[in-house]
Formats: sequence, C-alpha cells, structure tokens
Amino acid sequence: MLLIVFHVPKSLFGTAPTVRLNRPLSSTSSGLQTQRQFPCVDAHAARESRLKASVALSDTTSETGPEPAYARPHPSQYSIYHHPRPFHLVYAAKLPSFDIAYETWGTLSPTRDNAILLHTGLSASSHAASTPTNPSEGWWEKFVGPGKAIDTDRYFVICTNVLGGCYGSTGPSSLQPSTGKPYGTNFPIISIFDMVRAQFHLLDSLGIDQLYASVGCSMGAMQSLAAGWLYPDRVGKVVSISGTARSTPSSIAMRFAQRSVLMADPNWNKGFYYDGLPPHTGMKLARQIATITYRSGPEWDQRFGRRIRTLPDSVTGKEQSSSPALCPDFLIETYLDHQGEQFCLKYDANSLIYISKAMDLFDMTSTALDGLQLTSSFHPLTIPLSPHGLHKTSHSKSHPPPANPPPYLSELAQGMQPLSNIPTLVLGVQSDILFTVEQQREVADALRLAGNDRVSYYELGGVWGHDTFLIDVLNVGGAIRGFLA
Amino acid sequence: MLLIVFHVPKSLFGTAPTVRLNRPLSSTSSGLQTQRQFPCVDAHAARESRLKASVALSDTTSETGPEPAYARPHPSQYSIYHHPRPFHLVYAAKLPSFDIAYETWGTLSPTRDNAILLHTGLSASSHAASTPTNPSEGWWEKFVGPGKAIDTDRYFVICTNVLGGCYGSTGPSSLQPSTGKPYGTNFPIISIFDMVRAQFHLLDSLGIDQLYASVGCSMGAMQSLAAGWLYPDRVGKVVSISGTARSTPSSIAMRFAQRSVLMADPNWNKGFYYDGLPPHTGMKLARQIATITYRSGPEWDQRFGRRIRTLPDSVTGKEQSSSPALCPDFLIETYLDHQGEQFCLKYDANSLIYISKAMDLFDMTSTALDGLQLTSSFHPLTIPLSPHGLHKTSHSKSHPPPANPPPYLSELAQGMQPLSNIPTLVLGVQSDILFTVEQQREVADALRLAGNDRVSYYELGGVWGHDTFLIDVLNVGGAIRGFLA
Repeated sequence: MLLIVFHVPKSLFGTAPTVRLNRPLSSTSSGLQTQRQFPCVDAHAARESRLKASVALSDTTSETGPEPAYARPHPSQYSIYHHPRPFHLVYAAKLPSFDIAYETWGTLSPTRDNAILLHTGLSASSHAASTPTNPSEGWWEKFVGPGKAIDTDRYFVICTNVLGGCYGSTGPSSLQPSTGKPYGTNFPIISIFDMVRAQFHLLDSLGIDQLYASVGCSMGAMQSLAAGWLYPDRVGKVVSISGTARSTPSSIAMRFAQRSVLMADPNWNKGFYYDGLPPHTGMKLARQIATITYRSGPEWDQRFGRRIRTLPDSVTGKEQSSSPALCPDFLIETYLDHQGEQFCLKYDANSLIYISKAMDLFDMTSTALDGLQLTSSFHPLTIPLSPHGLHKTSHSKSHPPPANPPPYLSELAQGMQPLSNIPTLVLGVQSDILFTVEQQREVADALRLAGNDRVSYYELGGVWGHDTFLIDVLNVGGAIRGFLA
Repeated sequence: MLLIVFHVPKSLFGTAPTVRLNRPLSSTSSGLQTQRQFPCVDAHAARESRLKASVALSDTTSETGPEPAYARPHPSQYSIYHHPRPFHLVYAAKLPSFDIAYETWGTLSPTRDNAILLHTGLSASSHAASTPTNPSEGWWEKFVGPGKAIDTDRYFVICTNVLGGCYGSTGPSSLQPSTGKPYGTNFPIISIFDMVRAQFHLLDSLGIDQLYASVGCSMGAMQSLAAGWLYPDRVGKVVSISGTARSTPSSIAMRFAQRSVLMADPNWNKGFYYDGLPPHTGMKLARQIATITYRSGPEWDQRFGRRIRTLPDSVTGKEQSSSPALCPDFLIETYLDHQGEQFCLKYDANSLIYISKAMDLFDMTSTALDGLQLTSSFHPLTIPLSPHGLHKTSHSKSHPPPANPPPYLSELAQGMQPLSNIPTLVLGVQSDILFTVEQQREVADALRLAGNDRVSYYELGGVWGHDTFLIDVLNVGGAIRGFLA
C-alpha cells in the first residue's frame, strides 16, 4: 500500500493543518488523466444490450417484440374472471370489457359467509401466498395460510391482481379489443373505486354476496376502505393497514417524481413500447425513489449506517474499502441500486404510472366524492349489521371522536359516512414516511366522527417504516387475527 | 357541459352503486383512440431543440458548444482568488491550481478582527446579498446587510463559491490546465474539508488571520463546523444552521437518487458534455427530487393541499379543473415541475454530482476522521480563546451533556474535540426532513460531550422544513444576531 504524507504550504498565519493519505490512490486521482469508470451507468447500457439481443433472438422465432417477465405469468397459476360487458369508469367513459386475475385459499363455507377479499399494494400480483399450482412464496406468505393471522382453515381468501395491473388483469399492457394492440396510454385513467367495483363483479360471479372482511395494506387499504364505502351492506369488516383516506401532497410528490423519471426514459415512448424495449432505466430509477419511501431513516441507520462497500484487493484478495467514486460507495446506495435493478423488468411501466395515479386521486372527503358523483349503496337508516353477530368487535367502544375537529376532518367524516356501521381496524406505523401515522389517526378520527363506534386503532413502533406490514407478523398479524376473530 | 348518467349493470346481490360523471370527457376517454397528450414529456424535447438551435447559432460565430447560464457569470461581479500552486486533497492527490470566486460586504476593521466567513449550501454562488457591482438579490439577502442579522455595518462578510462549484470557482466545468479542456469527471473527488481549506487560502491572501465567526446553513453548516475543526485557533465562533456532523443514510439516499437520474441522462455522457448539450432533463428530474426534501409535508398541506390545476374552458374562457391526466394534475406536481424547469439550465450537472458526493462523505466521528488522516491544528491544552473577550456567549452554560451517551455519540464527540473551545450556535428545524432535528440535537450533544460549554441550541417549529433558513428572518436571523453580538 502506498503511503503518502505531504504538507499543505504553510498558511500565512496560524498552524497549517496537515493532510495525509494512507489509502491507495485511484488511477484517476494521481494524474487525473485516466477516465473514471461508471459501472452504475454502464449497467443501463448493458441491460439495453441484453434486451436487444433477446429481441433479435425472438425475431427468429416470432414477430412479437421482447416480452418482459411481467407479460407472461403462467395462466395456469391463477384464475381469470372475464367481464364481457362495458365497464363504466369514474374518470373516463368505459372499458369495453375486462379480466381480473385472482387466486383463492381455503374453502368457501356452505353459507358463503367466510370470504375475505384481500387487496394488494401497487405492484403486487394475486399471489398473496403459495398454492398447489404456484408453490413459490407469495407477497404475504407469512400472514395468509392455515393457522396464520388470516387463517385459511377458517376463511376463504380471495386476492386479485388489480385492474390496471400487469399480472393477468386488464391493464395498459393488455390488448385493446378494437385494435388488437396493447392499450399503452390509450388505457383510460382509473380510480381506486374502479378497481374495487371490478373486484365485486368477480365476487358476484363467485356467488359471494357478503364479505366477512375486506383487508388491505398500503394501496390495498385504500381499496379496503373504498369497498366498505361502495358496498356497506356487503362488507362485514374493514381492515386498513398503513393506508390513507386521502393522499397527501407529500405522497403525491414522491409518486410524481417516480412517474417523471419513468416518462423521461426515451424507451417509454409515451407509453407505446410494447413492440420495442421497455423503459428499464426509468423503471430502475423510479424504483430507487420508491424504495426510499418504503423504509425509514432509523432502520437504515441500524442496517447500513455509513458503511461503504468493500472490494477484494487485486493483490491480496482481502476485502477493503474502495476509494470514493461517483457511483455507489455507501451500502445504502448499493441497496437502492440493487432494489431498482431487481424490479426494473418485473413490472410494467404503464401499470406503475396508471396505478400510482389512481393512488394520488384517492380522496374520501365529501367534496371530492361529490365531484365524482360516485354513489354508495349506503342507507343512513340501515340498522347496523354484523354479519356474524357473535364476532362483533368492541376494542375501541370507549374512544370518543375528537372534540373540536378541524374542517377537513369533518369533511372526511362526512365523506366516510357509509363506513359508519362497519367494524374497522386501522393500523399504522410511526416510522412510515409515505403513509404517515398522522394519516392513520385521521382515518380513525374521521370514522369515529362519522359515528363509527367500532374502530380498532393501533400504532406500531419499530424502524421498518411502510414495509412493516410485510415484516411484522407478531404485531400486524396479531392485530388482524384479534380483529377478525 | 356534457352530463352523463349511467348505471353499472346490477350486481347479483345488494344494491348496485351508481357512477355518474358530471365533467367533460376528454377526447381519449370516450373512444380511447386519440393519443393522449404529454406536455410534461414534450417539454424535455422542446428544451433540447431550443438548446440545439442555440448551438447552431453559436457555431456560426465560434467553435465552442452552447454555454448554459452557469458557465458565464460576469467576472466583474465577483473577485477571484487564484491559487497558483498544487492543492492537496483529502480523497485524491491534488489539483494543480485553483480559483475561488468571492464577494465581500462591509469593511475589514483596522485590527482585522471583524471578518465573518459565510458558507453556502450546495448550489449557491458567492452572491449572498446585492452589491454595487451586482445589484440583483442574493441568496441570503434578508439576512446580510446594514442593520440585518449579519450586520455589514459591523462585520466584514466574505462569501465564496465553493471549490467544485460552477460560479467562478474551480470545478468540473473549469479548464484542466494540462489539457485545456473542461475537467468533466476527470475532476477529483473533493471533500467538505477541501472546500474549507481552499477558503482559508483566500483568507490568507486577504490578510485575515482570525475569523470573528464562521457561519453556514445546510452544506454551509458542514463547512462551518469543518472550519472550526481544521482551524480552531483562527475561528472565533461557529454557526451551524440546519446542518449535520455526519450525513445519514437517508440523506445519502435522497442525493443518490438525484445523482442516479442525472447520470442516466444520455446527454450527461459520463461527465463530458461541455462541447455538446448539457443533461438538462436529468437536471430537471434531479431538482424535482431535491425540492421534495427542501420543504415539508405540512407546508404543502397548507399551501397546495389536494388542489388541482385549472385550465380556461375553450368556449367560456372560465377557469375549470381539468380531467385527470398522466402529466401534472395537482398543484404540488406543477410546483415540482416548475422548480425543476427553473433550475435545469442554471447549474452545472457535474458540480451537483461532485458537491452532493462531498456532502455524503462528510463525517466528523473520530473513526471516520482517523481514516482520512486529516489533522486539525487543535492543541488539547490550548487555553480557550475568545477572540473578542467581551463577546463570550453564555446561552447554554447550564446545559450538561447527555448522561449516558450511545457509542456513536461518544465517537462523534471525540471527533469534534477540536471544536470544544469555540462558542457554537446550533439551530435546527423540527419539520426538516433532510437535516432532521435529531441531527441538530446530535451536533449539540456531541459538542457538549466534547467539553464545549458554550453551545447555544435552538429548535424552530413551523412548516418550512429545510428551507426555513432562507425564510425565517425573525427566528433564524434573531438567533444569529443574538449569538454574534
């Protein structure tokens, strides 16, 4: 190892600080002539080349362009509900027809009263847990299964890929019937309410009138609340974990940043990339930004701190810290880089854009809902129904609504009126920077203000941020189990 | 206005919710055939065309490529300190020479004891306040001037463009003496300590031995602490506002995301774009991300809420909300878009990359400093000096250091030992998500643990987040005025 000791020319006054360097100098730092290496940038070009090669290969066998992994989940691994009629949407006119991909676990009871509809976050498929036809681990494997928090010995669990998604349900990558080509950005703007209405067409087809519960985390919590709002007579309980009843400017800003980097990728081509290469670089960059919002600072402090990556010494082979570079140095950087790299070909870019937009648009305040002219089947005079009489929760009967609610909260309570008779579990995480704990309190307060006296409310500590719902089986799972029982 | 009322086909069970739309349908939503418009994406191409046209224009008169605004501040509006000798760096070998652009306000006293060195944030120039040669408003105009918090009737104030910058100081856009071409990414990695050491060469040239105070906000606070650390005998007081003594993984993640989108812009060309077009799209996207970290959620809730942009009706001319689109809808989105657009040609992309990296690398814990072998001129036995005897502060003499400090805090205290005799003002903002209030407490606690009994510590409330130091004249200005007096 080269040890260099030198002294800065003595300053005119005072003691001159000394600069000594006991690390190997990089080739660029001594003479400044060798061009710096950028593996993190070269990775984009390398990915592009690999994809181009796969196009060339597929050209020899077919006329179609490359199909990234998301375009071909094996249809034998999920079921499809096909809706052959026009489906009217909140913000646009209609879809001529649609498919919803779904999977189920457990057995529907003879009285059909044990169904739980599970709603997913932005990018998840219907594969919440492993099945005989698809034994790979699901996105909520630890929570759904025999004897687990959502006990499939007891409940019949249904999970769908959302409308707008790319894992079997109709979305921007689906073929538009009138053209026979992928919708691309001809796909209409969709809302969370549209996603839920599509799911209830599936429930209709399954002969399920009453849901024992509607359960969701993150964007799934929005859907879960929307399900209770649209169909208060059909939803027995609502579970909303790390969600919100109205997206905040901060969360819109984070999703806008993701959409912006994605749409700036030349491969995106205004959404028409299905016969070419997908915007994999934009997807990687977008995922890096998203990942920042999924965890929390304290977790990274514990997990990565300021540790930097090590590389094997070219002579001794011993791992040692590299000199600072412009590509990732810190472990937090390599982590984000890796997360982006893993995701960038797994999910359809247009699905990300449309679904993240649907999240931005979600707002249950009365003024926002009035603007949509979307009506609930709620009848204010309906006698509160508990679908299972015996299982009425009473966790928070003693919690009164806030005494002097601010105007926005009153508006939210007014908008959420249809949920006033449905036992609801609201659970949030104090370290969540995307769906902040303030938003969880807001949901619980608005429900209580709306007259709901069966709101169970929990706040979790810990450092896992928004991702807590994927990790904390003990606390998240425990709260769900207790609430559903 | 078209009013459409339709009913979803009645579901098998229960009441079918109704969807009604009372807004004009966009051309894409009815037939799904007209291609969607993307003004936010077209903006990048339009900017590219404008820049190309300016190249063509400049080609007729010169051989050089387009020079964005940052490349030509008028040299008559600032002074230059030229350092003609090699300058040794912390992470790389050396720069063969360097320039530092600076401006001054007020008059140096005959005893040269009233100088304040002002350090800037990442992208600021030396123009902290208006001057006779440059009457345009400076970045800290409200704080620096006759009778203001930093009173130029009393103090001689010096502000520099940092080493690595692009407003007159040597940085990646400067010509490399050995090649006569811009450094680009041949520029060496620099540290906050290098920036400060370059500034002290300027002070030497001005005949300033003792600083009355070193003052900085954001990255400037890092420099301010570094100045006290490197030259404890030459710095009378240290002001650190919304800074940190060691960058956290969260802040590194946010800067990494910015560098990543910038470096993915094909125009960036691994840093060698000076004879072509600059990576303006990457710069816009990076600035959008940065802007998210500069303010806070509560401010956006108040300022924008969920309001969406309005457009004049094509017939009546009356402003009305537009239908949801994939480009910006919400005011928070148009705000971020505008901030990015305003910035993307004002600052050099490579300067952003190098300086943000220097921020990531900043760490005053003893282990990190030991690794650098960077030595302070601190002598533990030096009798505490107060350069002005009479002006010794006593704000926090009664505040003891934390009783059971965690190990990292002890390490930080050990590293910050050279600052133990310098009266220091640490001020932070509770709504700051980039330089969190926890980091401010950490700086104050570490200094107190290091034996500094003249730490003034303030936390500000309010909703302005990191940008508070640019806005809150009453509280930030007041604390500085009180501390300096």
